[in-house]
Amino acid sequence: MNPSGLEALIEALRCLPGIGPKSAQRMAYHLLQRDRGGARKLGDAILHALQAVRHCQRCNTFTESDLCERCASPRRDSSLLCVVETPVDMNMMEQTQSYQGLYYVLMGRLSPLDGIGPRELGLDRVLARALDGLVTEVILATNYTNEGEATAHYLTAMLRPKGVRVSRIARGVPVGGELEYVDSGTLAQALRERKPFSEG
Amino acid sequence: MNPSGLEALIEALRCLPGIGPKSAQRMAYHLLQRDRGGARKLGDAILHALQAVRHCQRCNTFTESDLCERCASPRRDSSLLCVVETPVDMNMMEQTQSYQGLYYVLMGRLSPLDGIGPRELGLDRVLARALDGLVTEVILATNYTNEGEATAHYLTAMLRPKGVRVSRIARGVPVGGELEYVDSGTLAQALRERKPFSEG
Repeated sequence: MNPSGLEALIEALRCLPGIGPKSAQRMAYHLLQRDRGGARKLGDAILHALQAVRHCQRCNTFTESDLCERCASPRRDSSLLCVVETPVDMNMMEQTQSYQGLYYVLMGRLSPLDGIGPRELGLDRVLARALDGLVTEVILATNYTNEGEATAHYLTAMLRPKGVRVSRIARGVPVGGELEYVDSGTLAQALRERKPFSEG
Repeated sequence: MNPSGLEALIEALRCLPGIGPKSAQRMAYHLLQRDRGGARKLGDAILHALQAVRHCQRCNTFTESDLCERCASPRRDSSLLCVVETPVDMNMMEQTQSYQGLYYVLMGRLSPLDGIGPRELGLDRVLARALDGLVTEVILATNYTNEGEATAHYLTAMLRPKGVRVSRIARGVPVGGELEYVDSGTLAQALRERKPFSEG
């Protein structure tokens, strides 16, 4: 029914997370009818980001150079390595102003149902990063969801045998909650009260 | 905190209807981390659609040529003109297989709160279209929402003094409902039972 360029746009919009056929259609109509300026900016921004944005070679977060600003900074404590799921979680940790160490950003979590295992998540790169000779403690700050917990367990089982000290932020983060939605005070508390990772 | 290309992408995604800062951020991460192929297709599709998709000179729907297929078809009854709000609504009318006339697609509705008045909606073009000498009846098939009703009232007040016969699809469409979500049978009934538009 729709012209082919419009159909292609509707189909392409469905690659966005949580967008079904009805939403995609509404979005396409909105872009073409009400906001062609915004649409052009969006198209350009996507193609530019694809070309410019890549991963920090050290911490795996998004960056436009080889190393992100944080990893390149001489002021960070390179003996501490905090493992988080996403760049948002890293920003949340920074906002607590309670942490001066470095990060590793998993860009996800173990999620077997979605086909994301240790290999897909590149967990061997976390191990290599933790064994750089400078890191003395790995702080696991994955979410306290089932997947985040499973990821923390897996990382501990991988790091401990190599003699790496592993800790977990305190369960001040609400059980079942996600770091992204927690206030800075709670998160700072959870960071201060981190404890050795227990298998139970 | 984010590299500039990523920030620009997050900002650009917010032009999509119903997408706030958190959703935009999640979408951007998803595109860059999990679906670069889809992202490229999306960027290309947006820019291609902007270039290729325009409005039918007769019915105002989206098309890639001067006239849409329907307006260009000699098999349609050019004495009937059905006014709908969106291309989706037009497709819903077509699916009833109860209508062989032509359409005018408003691409919106009167909505003073959103700054959309008769001028923004280009209602004078509906009048010009209805006065082409072939149209004998204008069927108003705007939604039975407040805005759709207001639009129908306005169009009637505009068309009647020019001697155009105006009808309204029957209120078989649930009050407060939108055409897009009604089953074809109900919509066919509403079309059959259309009645002269009454100001009350």
